[in-house]
Amino acid sequence: MAKLPLYAAGITSTFAILLTAAAAEDAALLKQAQGIFQPLPKDMATAEFPITRERVELGRSLFFDPRLTIDASMSCSSCHQPAFYVTDALPKPMGVKQRPHPRHVPTNHAGTSFVIHWRGDRTNLEDQVFQALTSPITSGQPDEKAVIDRLARIPGYAPLFKAAFPEEPQSMTLRNIATAVGAYERTLVTPSPFDAYLAGNQEALPPAAKAGLEKFINTGCVACHNGVGIGGGIYQKFGVVEDYWNATGSDPIDKGRFDVTKDPNDLYVFRVASLRNVAMTPPYFHDGSVATLPEAVKVMARVQLGVTLDDADIRDIVAFLQSLTGELPANFATAPVLPAGAVAPAK
Amino acid sequence: MAKLPLYAAGITSTFAILLTAAAAEDAALLKQAQGIFQPLPKDMATAEFPITRERVELGRSLFFDPRLTIDASMSCSSCHQPAFYVTDALPKPMGVKQRPHPRHVPTNHAGTSFVIHWRGDRTNLEDQVFQALTSPITSGQPDEKAVIDRLARIPGYAPLFKAAFPEEPQSMTLRNIATAVGAYERTLVTPSPFDAYLAGNQEALPPAAKAGLEKFINTGCVACHNGVGIGGGIYQKFGVVEDYWNATGSDPIDKGRFDVTKDPNDLYVFRVASLRNVAMTPPYFHDGSVATLPEAVKVMARVQLGVTLDDADIRDIVAFLQSLTGELPANFATAPVLPAGAVAPAK
Repeated sequence: MAKLPLYAAGITSTFAILLTAAAAEDAALLKQAQGIFQPLPKDMATAEFPITRERVELGRSLFFDPRLTIDASMSCSSCHQPAFYVTDALPKPMGVKQRPHPRHVPTNHAGTSFVIHWRGDRTNLEDQVFQALTSPITSGQPDEKAVIDRLARIPGYAPLFKAAFPEEPQSMTLRNIATAVGAYERTLVTPSPFDAYLAGNQEALPPAAKAGLEKFINTGCVACHNGVGIGGGIYQKFGVVEDYWNATGSDPIDKGRFDVTKDPNDLYVFRVASLRNVAMTPPYFHDGSVATLPEAVKVMARVQLGVTLDDADIRDIVAFLQSLTGELPANFATAPVLPAGAVAPAK
Repeated sequence: MAKLPLYAAGITSTFAILLTAAAAEDAALLKQAQGIFQPLPKDMATAEFPITRERVELGRSLFFDPRLTIDASMSCSSCHQPAFYVTDALPKPMGVKQRPHPRHVPTNHAGTSFVIHWRGDRTNLEDQVFQALTSPITSGQPDEKAVIDRLARIPGYAPLFKAAFPEEPQSMTLRNIATAVGAYERTLVTPSPFDAYLAGNQEALPPAAKAGLEKFINTGCVACHNGVGIGGGIYQKFGVVEDYWNATGSDPIDKGRFDVTKDPNDLYVFRVASLRNVAMTPPYFHDGSVATLPEAVKVMARVQLGVTLDDADIRDIVAFLQSLTGELPANFATAPVLPAGAVAPAK
């Protein structure tokens, strides 16, 4: 220190003050974020829907098994692909026999959502699976018997059901398929750099992502996109300030939850989407009408909040959204080897 | 030894003689097997088709990417699924737009085969991929431009092509897609207990599998099913001794290679299938007409060799065939995360 010139000592202390001010701002932002968002739990089990190892194992096989559907060509994993972060890169997925699904496929973490599907017409993951098993679009199977007959012909499944539901003499049922697939889906969490940040690690987010987080909060995005799912907690109208359909050129117009409830207040109302893994899952919105994340951010700010974001704002918010990309869990990224068994051979 | 009664010493030495005789038989069987079959190499690269890390990486992404096909709903991995050991559990796969494929999907190791496809109408893996990319059933894309336009719109692909084909300014071509996917497919080898056995490890096969191997040799199955692929080395007529179509009830009758060559000698002639992973890939034969492996073994012995196998023979041969199941390689069992990019969104 003896050799340090006076001006250098001055710079050093100014620098130290700036550093302290920056650290204080960083700490304030983190504290604010911790009040708005919560990190992912290790799984999405609940008191009502506990998970067991055996149910998860069975559910994982069923999730990847196309033999449940009418032509044995589509599984849950056909639309919820590992390669596209639990989605399929299409505006709207194609179901069995070329029957189109009406809305864009959601990614994982639906277990953190207050209702399931864009219109909230499924109460929980297990209800979604149960109804999907005989849905004309998702499955094409006419009834429980048709699905169970298929599984009963694959020798490897009986022991998996027995292990997962040991109390039940007749455990191969649609209800238990739904419980097992739900249990598996409740394990599919992808903790992200943002979760590490929420846990207190300031280094987990690059500066652009922190700037984007601040803008995401101050622009008002967090009014809907908050909580553990960064969304998924409420319904909201698409087009609060400005008409959504004009902004995206979406066609046909989707009345949203109105078609479920017939309540005029529900016109164009949808469940707010979780933004976890959003950078990996284009295209965007319930109709997949927007191809890129910057465009989606711009449209949302405009039609929901009446805000025109400039390019720097969008870049920062996208950097924040990229910090929501987590690593796919191994029990999803790696396909299970399924019990061998041919379906409907000619003989 | 002083306390050992004479009769016990007699038993011990008889036992030792029996053991020695059994070991000699085991050694003879192994030596015979080593003359008929070869273990898998570490990959299926050749002088004509070398592999590089970059081409394998690109090829792996393309193999799993449905965005190459007309409706972006099917990839190579749709029919060649990890969950079913590179097959799809169907008699015949369904192509794009519900267009049925004419023959059963083969499993991996086609790189060890002398020609590709059941009728031998593809010269090698790369030729198969190249033709598939604009096949009306497999892809539905009309031409090279349509496929390349799709890939060019996904920003993440250009760097992968550049890395895989650094010498070529315009590297995004159907030819290079075929080369890259071929390179990837040439890495998909599944070494099995039988390979360990061929390498000299007597313990790698259980006694039933060794008994089955002996019967597999002595019944004459090895006339066609030999070499590194345990098949895949020659053409053969389906139904040498007895009519195949009667035995399986297969309908319609498939003229096989005759439809390619118009040579009467090729009527009902097909490429002999590799039996690697056969226990994991029902149903069986070019038409998927037989649902189970024991039935397939029985039919083959009868129509190809004029042999009626009893239940014990079939059980042993099936035990041998089960020893041909290898472990799926990690670069296939685990799906790659694909470059993000929406396909044909409304806007």
